[in-house]
Amino acid sequence: MRAVCFGELMMRLVPPGYLRISQADRLELTFGGAEANVAVSLANYGVDARFVTRFPNNPIGELAIQTLRSMNVDTAHIARGGDRVGIYFVEKGASMRPSKVVYDRKHSSIATIEPGMVDWDSAFDGADWFHWTGITPALSDSATAVTLEACQAAKAKGLTISCDLNYRKNLWSREKAKQTMTALAQYVDVMIANEEDSQDVFGIAAEGSDIEGGQLSESGYRALAKRLADTFGCAKVAFTLRESFSANDNDWSGLLYDRAADSAARSRKYSVRIVDRVGGGDAFGGGLIYSLLSGFDNASAINFAVAASALKHTIEGDFNRVTVDEVKALAGGSVSGRVQR
Amino acid sequence: MRAVCFGELMMRLVPPGYLRISQADRLELTFGGAEANVAVSLANYGVDARFVTRFPNNPIGELAIQTLRSMNVDTAHIARGGDRVGIYFVEKGASMRPSKVVYDRKHSSIATIEPGMVDWDSAFDGADWFHWTGITPALSDSATAVTLEACQAAKAKGLTISCDLNYRKNLWSREKAKQTMTALAQYVDVMIANEEDSQDVFGIAAEGSDIEGGQLSESGYRALAKRLADTFGCAKVAFTLRESFSANDNDWSGLLYDRAADSAARSRKYSVRIVDRVGGGDAFGGGLIYSLLSGFDNASAINFAVAASALKHTIEGDFNRVTVDEVKALAGGSVSGRVQR
Amino acid sequence: MRAVCFGELMMRLVPPGYLRISQADRLELTFGGAEANVAVSLANYGVDARFVTRFPNNPIGELAIQTLRSMNVDTAHIARGGDRVGIYFVEKGASMRPSKVVYDRKHSSIATIEPGMVDWDSAFDGADWFHWTGITPALSDSATAVTLEACQAAKAKGLTISCDLNYRKNLWSREKAKQTMTALAQYVDVMIANEEDSQDVFGIAAEGSDIEGGQLSESGYRALAKRLADTFGCAKVAFTLRESFSANDNDWSGLLYDRAADSAARSRKYSVRIVDRVGGGDAFGGGLIYSLLSGFDNASAINFAVAASALKHTIEGDFNRVTVDEVKALAGGSVSGRVQR
Amino acid sequence: MRAVCFGELMMRLVPPGYLRISQADRLELTFGGAEANVAVSLANYGVDARFVTRFPNNPIGELAIQTLRSMNVDTAHIARGGDRVGIYFVEKGASMRPSKVVYDRKHSSIATIEPGMVDWDSAFDGADWFHWTGITPALSDSATAVTLEACQAAKAKGLTISCDLNYRKNLWSREKAKQTMTALAQYVDVMIANEEDSQDVFGIAAEGSDIEGGQLSESGYRALAKRLADTFGCAKVAFTLRESFSANDNDWSGLLYDRAADSAARSRKYSVRIVDRVGGGDAFGGGLIYSLLSGFDNASAINFAVAASALKHTIEGDFNRVTVDEVKALAGGSVSGRVQR
Amino acid sequence: MRAVCFGELMMRLVPPGYLRISQADRLELTFGGAEANVAVSLANYGVDARFVTRFPNNPIGELAIQTLRSMNVDTAHIARGGDRVGIYFVEKGASMRPSKVVYDRKHSSIATIEPGMVDWDSAFDGADWFHWTGITPALSDSATAVTLEACQAAKAKGLTISCDLNYRKNLWSREKAKQTMTALAQYVDVMIANEEDSQDVFGIAAEGSDIEGGQLSESGYRALAKRLADTFGCAKVAFTLRESFSANDNDWSGLLYDRAADSAARSRKYSVRIVDRVGGGDAFGGGLIYSLLSGFDNASAINFAVAASALKHTIEGDFNRVTVDEVKALAGGSVSGRVQR
Amino acid sequence: MRAVCFGELMMRLVPPGYLRISQADRLELTFGGAEANVAVSLANYGVDARFVTRFPNNPIGELAIQTLRSMNVDTAHIARGGDRVGIYFVEKGASMRPSKVVYDRKHSSIATIEPGMVDWDSAFDGADWFHWTGITPALSDSATAVTLEACQAAKAKGLTISCDLNYRKNLWSREKAKQTMTALAQYVDVMIANEEDSQDVFGIAAEGSDIEGGQLSESGYRALAKRLADTFGCAKVAFTLRESFSANDNDWSGLLYDRAADSAARSRKYSVRIVDRVGGGDAFGGGLIYSLLSGFDNASAINFAVAASALKHTIEGDFNRVTVDEVKALAGGSVSGRVQR
Repeated sequence: MRAVCFGELMMRLVPPGYLRISQADRLELTFGGAEANVAVSLANYGVDARFVTRFPNNPIGELAIQTLRSMNVDTAHIARGGDRVGIYFVEKGASMRPSKVVYDRKHSSIATIEPGMVDWDSAFDGADWFHWTGITPALSDSATAVTLEACQAAKAKGLTISCDLNYRKNLWSREKAKQTMTALAQYVDVMIANEEDSQDVFGIAAEGSDIEGGQLSESGYRALAKRLADTFGCAKVAFTLRESFSANDNDWSGLLYDRAADSAARSRKYSVRIVDRVGGGDAFGGGLIYSLLSGFDNASAINFAVAASALKHTIEGDFNRVTVDEVKALAGGSVSGRVQR
Repeated sequence: MRAVCFGELMMRLVPPGYLRISQADRLELTFGGAEANVAVSLANYGVDARFVTRFPNNPIGELAIQTLRSMNVDTAHIARGGDRVGIYFVEKGASMRPSKVVYDRKHSSIATIEPGMVDWDSAFDGADWFHWTGITPALSDSATAVTLEACQAAKAKGLTISCDLNYRKNLWSREKAKQTMTALAQYVDVMIANEEDSQDVFGIAAEGSDIEGGQLSESGYRALAKRLADTFGCAKVAFTLRESFSANDNDWSGLLYDRAADSAARSRKYSVRIVDRVGGGDAFGGGLIYSLLSGFDNASAINFAVAASALKHTIEGDFNRVTVDEVKALAGGSVSGRVQR
Repeated sequence: MRAVCFGELMMRLVPPGYLRISQADRLELTFGGAEANVAVSLANYGVDARFVTRFPNNPIGELAIQTLRSMNVDTAHIARGGDRVGIYFVEKGASMRPSKVVYDRKHSSIATIEPGMVDWDSAFDGADWFHWTGITPALSDSATAVTLEACQAAKAKGLTISCDLNYRKNLWSREKAKQTMTALAQYVDVMIANEEDSQDVFGIAAEGSDIEGGQLSESGYRALAKRLADTFGCAKVAFTLRESFSANDNDWSGLLYDRAADSAARSRKYSVRIVDRVGGGDAFGGGLIYSLLSGFDNASAINFAVAASALKHTIEGDFNRVTVDEVKALAGGSVSGRVQR
Repeated sequence: MRAVCFGELMMRLVPPGYLRISQADRLELTFGGAEANVAVSLANYGVDARFVTRFPNNPIGELAIQTLRSMNVDTAHIARGGDRVGIYFVEKGASMRPSKVVYDRKHSSIATIEPGMVDWDSAFDGADWFHWTGITPALSDSATAVTLEACQAAKAKGLTISCDLNYRKNLWSREKAKQTMTALAQYVDVMIANEEDSQDVFGIAAEGSDIEGGQLSESGYRALAKRLADTFGCAKVAFTLRESFSANDNDWSGLLYDRAADSAARSRKYSVRIVDRVGGGDAFGGGLIYSLLSGFDNASAINFAVAASALKHTIEGDFNRVTVDEVKALAGGSVSGRVQR
Repeated sequence: MRAVCFGELMMRLVPPGYLRISQADRLELTFGGAEANVAVSLANYGVDARFVTRFPNNPIGELAIQTLRSMNVDTAHIARGGDRVGIYFVEKGASMRPSKVVYDRKHSSIATIEPGMVDWDSAFDGADWFHWTGITPALSDSATAVTLEACQAAKAKGLTISCDLNYRKNLWSREKAKQTMTALAQYVDVMIANEEDSQDVFGIAAEGSDIEGGQLSESGYRALAKRLADTFGCAKVAFTLRESFSANDNDWSGLLYDRAADSAARSRKYSVRIVDRVGGGDAFGGGLIYSLLSGFDNASAINFAVAASALKHTIEGDFNRVTVDEVKALAGGSVSGRVQR
Repeated sequence: MRAVCFGELMMRLVPPGYLRISQADRLELTFGGAEANVAVSLANYGVDARFVTRFPNNPIGELAIQTLRSMNVDTAHIARGGDRVGIYFVEKGASMRPSKVVYDRKHSSIATIEPGMVDWDSAFDGADWFHWTGITPALSDSATAVTLEACQAAKAKGLTISCDLNYRKNLWSREKAKQTMTALAQYVDVMIANEEDSQDVFGIAAEGSDIEGGQLSESGYRALAKRLADTFGCAKVAFTLRESFSANDNDWSGLLYDRAADSAARSRKYSVRIVDRVGGGDAFGGGLIYSLLSGFDNASAINFAVAASALKHTIEGDFNRVTVDEVKALAGGSVSGRVQR
């Protein structure tokens, strides 16, 4: 199985522990980004994962590549050039104090990518799946153009295409997002979203769901998924469902709608004591793609994806450093956290 | 708005994470102290905050001043001289293991301050508010004398005077505290206390409140507040109410009694997953003074003060490094801790 | 009071915070091991504790001895020689992600110990108690032989002998364990076990107890204890009872069966927010031995042992760095975790 | 004495110790920048130092301001807006391996500053001195325009103007630099340069100086200084003279030419074992400005400036955290490094 | 260009800074080993480097593989199985205090490797070069057998074979080494040694060389190299020549003897201020193999190898994290260590 | 061999690396003090070393004891009580920037010790040697009285008494020191001093020695030693001779005068690249006492003492963590710092 992910990988800088940015005089340095996080998940599960992006010709770009290589992600098709690797700062929240992400991602090499810089024919060689998210076209018009270029190449080669809507309000307006994503969504076979994304991007809300209060209606989500699937012709639509009680405590579940069967599979729900939730949605995407590539049925797929992303919440950094066996153990019901010797 | 706080700022040394002092071979170095913590809160909220204390002429004294300056606190009226900056060690508790504070504060420069060392007329220039706590007179007889000197100068200049009772049993006996504080309380307009302080200092207990069990009776606190206000002629008396389930989990609320209206406003109650609770009471004081200086009504004031101090429990160190906007967001009901991007 | 413990002390290497081993580029270095942990507990409680093991003649062996000495454990009878100090890596779990212990303990100096290397007559001089665990004989046949040698010498000198069953499946099979431990158990006066050990080692299960689900039947454990006591002629059998809700949250209690009285004392149950649970069972053993050496009645003994081990869960590292006063305060009901100043 | 510095303050990220960037998973976080470094030096010497720049409205901008405030630098005239705080990464060299600075400073808020954003009349209020460097106009055309605006305002108010040429080849070409700096140099009273700058910026080389070999001819520098002073009408021209034997070991001295007297004062030369040399030239500038503001004669001024900057080489970070007394002690000949108790 | 290295990669644990092992409570974790270090050097220089070893099936083995992958080393032919990854502790020396290496490498998976576990035919597919060192056969008789197996397969495939003698006295006696290495040396085309190795392994000393005093005679080394080349039929023999003045300061050079030309090329000599010298000899090997694979002449080859290994002394960890450009810049004479911006 | 040392052990707090105190937000925590440092040296060399001091009854006092115990120092005669453990901050110097020690040692438990608090008869039981330094009487009049008490008890029991003059100008005036030390010096058999002490304490200067310039005249020191020995009736007088070129580089040697033989032995001189020089003099004292206790001749004794203290300069912290073998290897001429495997 070979999958290709396209998007941004940023340097992630985090004060130690629960320190605020204003208290920091050291920063933990890792890398993260929605699409690369999916690639790492896939590599961890044994998929031949390839990540496509653009990095500058400097030691920061080299460090990013080295990091991906250590995760066993294929970096051969990464374009080089441009000014900088995007950066984001994460301040870990606690209790009622929310986590805070400060982006310094403008003018990054991937934002200034241009059509033609990636040889998609070669990048997709032997691949079964192509994954991108709504962040990439949001970076710039030229990044939108390259995303379109990639979707067309992937479609031509017969790859399955997945997209996580991932709306980011500081990158673009709802209007711009709607216009752009409506065009790109035509190519998407598997759409991934959370409870706010479809509202933000396409103006379509879940009925019967009060997000702040954390009350979620399953039927509402099913209807919403059907509407998205019908609108864009997607074979499957998946939702992550987060109920946030505090920065430390969330409930986490998911739902997978299958358009052909017009049925939805709802996952088990996990109560998570959070170590680091950034990247949790991407871990869901990684788990889902692996499951579908592996031919799991819908119920197994959504349960694997949710268990994988629940585990991610217990792991520092964007990357979901878990194995298939660990995910399966959790999905199989082992939640007691007993010491493994 | 200008406020002046008078008291001690100590070096605060803390083993990393949950290590006990006996396990430490490194210590995190910050500064903290009841009155300086209030000054920092006020500076964070945009108040022109001035801190008065006494530091020795050595690099530790310089470091303390540098720290206050970084917090935008005015240090121009800090007296210099004496032997040392007080130190305290904090061992962070967990679950049933209580946090432990070991003081090494004797013989500090502020404890050996003498009347005449501070030019109060100049220190109070342009000020609206004067804040001190029961710790300062407990340090020494001469510190008591300077506190009295300050209260008299503040009263003469028409400042509002607030005092947090802050009883510390290792600094003085209940008898000594009662005698001293009774004399100083005459100058106090706004008195702040927790459920144990008024008992410890003045021998007046809250009825209907079982502290260990954490059962708090609102009417009992209201009666207690009234009694304090009537005894000392305070316009307002505020209580912080802590229900401690473990070193990690506390409920936190407050009550503000207004003597003129003979009414009490009770705040929202927060369930807090604690990061660091030392300084929580001071964050309450800072929030309350800011609220009253800003002309908030009683209900808004107590809710701002409690939200501010609830947030403090999620922040490392004594200082409450939050903004007015963050406090207002929490007081406005945003407790879900969702990531802010 | 003098007690002698015999077994392995390993180097314990732990990634910072909740990092997985695969994320580590630094490791916290301490030492730990079931029997040494008991010795440290006893030394903390004022018992003259002596630890017997075998270390190589290299700086790692020196560091291990230095560590024991800092804990006030008598190291005079530690044999020297062999290749290495055993190592184990601990990856701290969170929420549904279990903690993971990776052992690199094979070929250690204690595993290659031979009868005659320890002068037991001298090691037991003036001693009242001898403690060992099921890990030591599991290390090798020669370690089994030395354990037998020690038991015989202790019995000859009239010491009370305690044993924690501590079954480790990567060290030996159930068959081998049963055969070996059945022989050694004849010497044991006080047997300590958890809910899985007696099943794993002797094939005797608690009835009415569903370990995964965490439902424990007190009568089942009592019956099990009686059966163990009768089978091996032990005066007392103690159980630790863990209910694991997640890697962060456990309930913890214990039960002490007295064969002479044919009665069982059940302890208070603690809900623990875990800092580090490795060594929790050993802290129970240390508390129990101290209690029995001190002549506590059964109820007091089991409550002291459980309070001590509950506290251990809040402390980093294998060693239970608490005092008798701290354990008694908790056993006496002080669970609120309020700051001690 | 009041001095105003104008330019960029960047976040400075440095791997621990001598690790290369490619080895880093933590970064030490401080701030630094040529003109801010001078402001910090001046504040350390008791000058009322004001720093003018532009920061974005985000927590990184706040942290930068907090850092300046802790150094007692006046931040009241810092403009807010734009996208980002510039960043640079420093990899500390050793022996034959050179230190490496990787810039990520494009698109910073100061680079996108526009004329009119700073109220120079107010910023220069009460000031005696204005300092800028060749880096600021190199950032962008609009930054050049603001530099010109500042120079004109400063000249109109009668301030002494100093400029450190500070040529940075990754910011602009020699041609662009020459054209721009020639125009701006008309306003400069005190010019500061190293042995390469005047060649790079104005195409004027020191004769008789072999930089690689480290052989410096005093008469050559004197002639060069005279030429620069005559060309631009500067009252004084100062040179820093570095002889680099390895990344750890440099010799460091300076020369101050006085146009009126047509004479040059050469400083003592120091052999420096380097802790951190980034910011060394700025420490020279800070020392020189302080000396001239304080009315030192030329020999004293150049010796103070060189001693100050020699000390900087022993201090981590860009900022020269030393006092006047410490500089004077070194300039007075105390080089033995004996412990001060 | 493809090269295959065979040997051991160990976990390397180092106390921070200059702490002794007895002072450590944290350890820096990297990996290192003579043959893997060469593979990393080659990968850094763009050679397709493949490392063959044997790791256990546990997280430590996984971490070792992940580390190699991050360095771009091909890990596809690493055998899995056995008990453990070897460990060594490094205590960094200073001044007259020597660095100390404590090995805990016995019983490692590579020591218990058996013939047949590696498919050499596949491992050598497309390869030009095979490198091993005298450490590998010293690990065990079976490791010797596998080394022989590898040499025979490499010879059969026409690869160039290099060997670094690397005598380790704690692994085997001189007698055993001589016997084993004499047999294996028959396969070696390029032999690498330091001034002690040939004496230790083959009993052949450099004449006119006083190692302690650090006086090296070039003609003596040339004669020694010729003797080794003639004895074993090697095309080339290379020496590293270290003059150790203290743990911080060494001079470093090399010599390459060419048997066909019967001539020796002596390199430039570098005075090195040491950051970390462990792995310095392997960096020489990596540089030499790269040079010879690239067709450099003898003088260029020895100068590249020595410059590369001189740089290694300035880099923390076993791996030589430098590029071809950096080595060439140094070999080209740039030793001043000036900051690169 | 049993030796007793009496004096102060302080908490030692040090910023990481070369950071100044004003840059610190973490501190390395160890313990150190002139007399305890000697005790640790002696314990490392196998002497039964006992340390007598006074610590408060708090966790800091416990930590100090635990530290001594880990070093194998007997702590059984340490008195308990008083307010605090003294603290000192060390700022590590570099190049021309001197190291700086900031003391916060006033009001410590040892400073408020009173005669009768130590049972000297029991403390000296079985002892051969008593060591104290000029710091102890400088702490307070009561500490002087206890020092006198100890000297009398030691003399009565026939112990050899050594004293390191150790003048500290912030503790007392030269006048007070001269008066006090003259009285106490009557009891001293072995006097230790550096080139400044005898001048500072007794007003007796070395002739022919220019300390700043580092030019030392051996005959001058010999004359000075003779004068001290004759004045106070000491059997031996030892000098440490430091030539300080920078904070990083010192030359270090010593001289031992024997009154009976009226001859002086001069040691080898070491050029030291300094890691941490605080405690260097105490390491000399420890080495000297060990040598004399062991019956070394004068030349061997002074060479052992100087080699031991030279090694100390390469070790972090006050304690000289080296073995007799390591000292002997250095004294025997092994200065090349080659890696020991």
